[in-house]
Amino acid sequence: MSTLHPLKVAVIGAGYWGPNLARNFANSPDWRLMAICDQDGSRAQQLADRTAAVAVTESVDELLASHDIDAVAIATPAQTHHDIAMRAIAAGKHVLVEKPLADNRADGVAMVTAAEKAGMVLMADHTYCYTPAVMKIRELVESGELGEILYVDSVRINLGLVQPDVDVFWDLAPHDLSILDFVLPGGLNSVAVSAQGADPLGSGKSCVGYLSLPLANGALAHIHVNWLSPTKIRQMVIGGSRRTLIWDDLNPQQRISVFDRGVTLQRQSDVLDDAAQRRASQISYRLGDTWSPALPEYEALAKMVGEFAISIREGRSSRTDGRAALRVLSVLEAANRSLTRGGRRSPVSGSGLLLEEAI
Amino acid sequence: MSTLHPLKVAVIGAGYWGPNLARNFANSPDWRLMAICDQDGSRAQQLADRTAAVAVTESVDELLASHDIDAVAIATPAQTHHDIAMRAIAAGKHVLVEKPLADNRADGVAMVTAAEKAGMVLMADHTYCYTPAVMKIRELVESGELGEILYVDSVRINLGLVQPDVDVFWDLAPHDLSILDFVLPGGLNSVAVSAQGADPLGSGKSCVGYLSLPLANGALAHIHVNWLSPTKIRQMVIGGSRRTLIWDDLNPQQRISVFDRGVTLQRQSDVLDDAAQRRASQISYRLGDTWSPALPEYEALAKMVGEFAISIREGRSSRTDGRAALRVLSVLEAANRSLTRGGRRSPVSGSGLLLEEAI
Amino acid sequence: MSTLHPLKVAVIGAGYWGPNLARNFANSPDWRLMAICDQDGSRAQQLADRTAAVAVTESVDELLASHDIDAVAIATPAQTHHDIAMRAIAAGKHVLVEKPLADNRADGVAMVTAAEKAGMVLMADHTYCYTPAVMKIRELVESGELGEILYVDSVRINLGLVQPDVDVFWDLAPHDLSILDFVLPGGLNSVAVSAQGADPLGSGKSCVGYLSLPLANGALAHIHVNWLSPTKIRQMVIGGSRRTLIWDDLNPQQRISVFDRGVTLQRQSDVLDDAAQRRASQISYRLGDTWSPALPEYEALAKMVGEFAISIREGRSSRTDGRAALRVLSVLEAANRSLTRGGRRSPVSGSGLLLEEAI
Amino acid sequence: MSTLHPLKVAVIGAGYWGPNLARNFANSPDWRLMAICDQDGSRAQQLADRTAAVAVTESVDELLASHDIDAVAIATPAQTHHDIAMRAIAAGKHVLVEKPLADNRADGVAMVTAAEKAGMVLMADHTYCYTPAVMKIRELVESGELGEILYVDSVRINLGLVQPDVDVFWDLAPHDLSILDFVLPGGLNSVAVSAQGADPLGSGKSCVGYLSLPLANGALAHIHVNWLSPTKIRQMVIGGSRRTLIWDDLNPQQRISVFDRGVTLQRQSDVLDDAAQRRASQISYRLGDTWSPALPEYEALAKMVGEFAISIREGRSSRTDGRAALRVLSVLEAANRSLTRGGRRSPVSGSGLLLEEAI
Repeated sequence: MSTLHPLKVAVIGAGYWGPNLARNFANSPDWRLMAICDQDGSRAQQLADRTAAVAVTESVDELLASHDIDAVAIATPAQTHHDIAMRAIAAGKHVLVEKPLADNRADGVAMVTAAEKAGMVLMADHTYCYTPAVMKIRELVESGELGEILYVDSVRINLGLVQPDVDVFWDLAPHDLSILDFVLPGGLNSVAVSAQGADPLGSGKSCVGYLSLPLANGALAHIHVNWLSPTKIRQMVIGGSRRTLIWDDLNPQQRISVFDRGVTLQRQSDVLDDAAQRRASQISYRLGDTWSPALPEYEALAKMVGEFAISIREGRSSRTDGRAALRVLSVLEAANRSLTRGGRRSPVSGSGLLLEEAI
Repeated sequence: MSTLHPLKVAVIGAGYWGPNLARNFANSPDWRLMAICDQDGSRAQQLADRTAAVAVTESVDELLASHDIDAVAIATPAQTHHDIAMRAIAAGKHVLVEKPLADNRADGVAMVTAAEKAGMVLMADHTYCYTPAVMKIRELVESGELGEILYVDSVRINLGLVQPDVDVFWDLAPHDLSILDFVLPGGLNSVAVSAQGADPLGSGKSCVGYLSLPLANGALAHIHVNWLSPTKIRQMVIGGSRRTLIWDDLNPQQRISVFDRGVTLQRQSDVLDDAAQRRASQISYRLGDTWSPALPEYEALAKMVGEFAISIREGRSSRTDGRAALRVLSVLEAANRSLTRGGRRSPVSGSGLLLEEAI
Repeated sequence: MSTLHPLKVAVIGAGYWGPNLARNFANSPDWRLMAICDQDGSRAQQLADRTAAVAVTESVDELLASHDIDAVAIATPAQTHHDIAMRAIAAGKHVLVEKPLADNRADGVAMVTAAEKAGMVLMADHTYCYTPAVMKIRELVESGELGEILYVDSVRINLGLVQPDVDVFWDLAPHDLSILDFVLPGGLNSVAVSAQGADPLGSGKSCVGYLSLPLANGALAHIHVNWLSPTKIRQMVIGGSRRTLIWDDLNPQQRISVFDRGVTLQRQSDVLDDAAQRRASQISYRLGDTWSPALPEYEALAKMVGEFAISIREGRSSRTDGRAALRVLSVLEAANRSLTRGGRRSPVSGSGLLLEEAI
Repeated sequence: MSTLHPLKVAVIGAGYWGPNLARNFANSPDWRLMAICDQDGSRAQQLADRTAAVAVTESVDELLASHDIDAVAIATPAQTHHDIAMRAIAAGKHVLVEKPLADNRADGVAMVTAAEKAGMVLMADHTYCYTPAVMKIRELVESGELGEILYVDSVRINLGLVQPDVDVFWDLAPHDLSILDFVLPGGLNSVAVSAQGADPLGSGKSCVGYLSLPLANGALAHIHVNWLSPTKIRQMVIGGSRRTLIWDDLNPQQRISVFDRGVTLQRQSDVLDDAAQRRASQISYRLGDTWSPALPEYEALAKMVGEFAISIREGRSSRTDGRAALRVLSVLEAANRSLTRGGRRSPVSGSGLLLEEAI
């Protein structure tokens, strides 16, 4: 497809997710996979063998010193993201980083600032955003098919591994938050968040959690994450003033349904009679058809590495750039604060501000 | 079935719900339907004709003066419940009242106090509690099949009528709250509630709402009510330490599923090594069978009027007595307060107290 | 709605189905329910009381002698249909008859012939045909939305009562057959049918059955009826050359789905290369959207009695007239013959013929 | 697990399915993958590289001449199975062969006869039989949980590729037939089959098909295969006299449901009154619980290659041996004959006979 020279990339971290990145870089016409870096050299070698990467190294410094690499993809534990990314940016490499961007917002701000100053692309691997379903949702929201967003309700529950280091919010909610950031007009710009969590097992962290995020114009987003559910649900409802969309990710035969059903309230300014009366008379109900768009089939990660390449080539922010990841991180940190204060609504740092102020 | 003389009842209010009560009293071997009372005499007459009630009246006073009536069922608007019930109790009648018990907690307290002093049964028509599914859930919780309750998640959403006088919490959540009160060991005894509501249509009241109720031992109940959803969902998950139950009221072929799947955390007091290590090693996962009990088929209201009769005859509280209704009302009032304070956790009046203190 | 004088009707048979007919005639602006006739006078009286019918009689003769009746609805056992209908036609009454038209085809032919000679409307109560879903299916087929019909697969299974007098074919398949007759262009005109039945309980009749009906142009209809299934399925797939429709009658939220997915084979006459090659190259796949039309809500029987009135007033055949019922009956009889011959394809009497020949 | 020396195997055919076999042999403790054989040497080499097979060859003769190979797995086109298998058996190799065993029954008989004479294991790769779900079904049938089998209804439909060389029966029904053979007590021993097929596209072969197979004791198996369905269904109902099982392969959360619901007919020999009366009084209905067993998770092919090893070591027939494959082939051939005779019931060659006669 591309007649340009492929960009050269190295993957750092050959553990759980690194192999998926390596495979997709290796198969992409936009990229040439040059090297695998992992503290465990044999693990790096194994991955290199499978993906035909040329070089293997245990040293990030050695890797970053190479002039033969344009970009790195960081798939190491969250607490190392900041350090590696800062060094990579300093070395003049574009950076793709796994979610979460960092394990605290301050580090994330530093990463975004450094990348912008250095003119490097800093992109977050918000994989879900590149699935056919979410791409279609973004398109439908953007085109106005749904009208104004009234509410979003997302449920992401299953029998999950109780993670040793993070709670259910940090484990699962980044998916929902990054998707919201991707599809909402203007991105995820809630000024506050309320979090309700429960640790009924006494595991030391929330295993069941709920986030409420007021959106613009009186709308509300709500996220339910849960490690203890015996059934798996991955469902998001996006209620709009014109239509409502339901995304059921576990129904491959009808992942997205768009309902032309709903309640409409005419907002008239020239009506003179009393308010309640007026309101009652202005409410109407639509009971229209349901429509389920056909979705193309492709691997989300392939689309994602493509976007990474394009944003580097065009010198533009990627669709899931560092700022998007920072918005997600900011909500998670605010949720932490809300949890410690009994669910009180906590302000989201940087929300609603220009970057200069936000960071 | 019963060889006792039937009790004598009158139904007050022949509007939306009264006919259902009248029909069930008329068909019950425990009851003899004596009269219908409605401000609109012709509406009362029509209902009397269909149910073979003997008398018709437009006057509550006249009705209550009759010595031939043991009990009244009140199916009038919520704001009239207190007045009619107080007069009925004063007249020595047992009282069944539609939900909500009253339109404010203070009135509800007065009703409960009056009934208890007078030795009259005051029962709430929490119809859902008498469905085969909820009766079975109560039985399963009581028998310990589920173990300790860890979390409850209830969703009750559909394209609903935007009510002129109440918001979505007061319209829909009483169902969930009364069910929780019915099935939880010890009833609904949350000491506080957080409410998140949205009015994205600008209708003047919440159309989308979420309630979070901390339960005993770190458990959490959460309720999602919504008038704007294009699809209808009636689902409650009750996560237990032994098993988890899912009630899907719209799936007649498998309304209740009990999953022997879940996470178990051993709580050992004698383990000496560091906490995180210990916790990790104590978590285990069960992946057992699923079981769906057959449910008997009967009409919930028939069961409900039967319970009303039995509690009168045995001189005991009914399973959904005035106090249960008061607990529901108390949560709704606390939710109101939470809403006006941006979702802040608001104490539930009377919770955790003996009645003397509670009311 | 109608400014015409209502037509006058009597219901014969106050057992299982008669009350439904009586209620709908009583509520229809097109009809005036005059009388109820049943061998059991008290049963007739009870029904008359509930539906405000004026007269009650135990005698069909007496009823038919009345000049005050335009039409009768026959809801008696199948073996009595022929006798009552013939007398009613002779008495100059229009006739609505429950399914099946008669318990044998010869009687059905006599009924159709008599009605046509006498100029009376003879209509079958194929209730399903008047449901919103089936009306919509007919409309979609007629408008060409589905293209040419390629196959129909219908499944109607549940835990059913093993009937004392009829097998599963005669109990359940009339629904599917009458629907096919209603929606297929040209009606149900299969020239033959193959039936496979099983009686694994040794009940003396088929409890599980399959019908295969070749349609025009190489298409095939297939019907699965089953009394022994623990789950209930009511599903019909209508595969078309342009689109495929699935009707799932137990999914109230999406009863009808129209899939723009399928296989297309271009039939070109000018291709010269070898056949297999040609065929392979002509096959293409469509993977388009799915669409679920909103359906109006009304009671099928109300629509049905309306059609009865209109066909009388307009002097035209009703949409489910005696001939339609005869086509259904003819298939059932042919299925009987096929069963006794080990599933061999058996010709359907009268199929593909004009009535003069067909009957 | 095994302390025995691994057996040595070569895979013949590196096309669509060969790689799956190679991978599973390579990962199995029971096997050592020695060689890959394919007419296209580079394709063989690629596969060998990925699976660490030692040798590569384009020549079956060369392969079979090797003393270092105990068994071969044949994953070549169906029409070549007979020739390669016969040579392999002659060379003293055990043989695993893809479905179908051969492209005609006579060849299949020759293969079974040759293997039995030579004392070699001839096994068919009926993969589905080794899935956790089918293994569990077999276990439940065997243990008597379901009672006597009354009927089986299998549906395997989706939007499938119209195959150039085979019709929908030969493409899809082998799965259902091999599963039936695996789970039914006594295997698939229908003496006859009726086939109904349709080719509404004019593709030159059936694209929609139905098979009816009378089983012992009045039971009936029925299979629906379809390439033209816009939705995918993989469902098998096994109705038993005690319980009924439904296998929904596309519902990972509840693949198998066992219903304790059904119809029971008491067969009493000492009842004297008339037959119809007797039958009515003997029918009863069970409305019991539903149960869904947890299934282990493993790859079916891993289990399958394990069974191949064990049957060789123990010198016994494998669970899906050549005779099982021959029974499947015999039904497919009989179905062909039925199709050409308008769906007439056609005898299945060899059914109900001992092998000596059957082949």
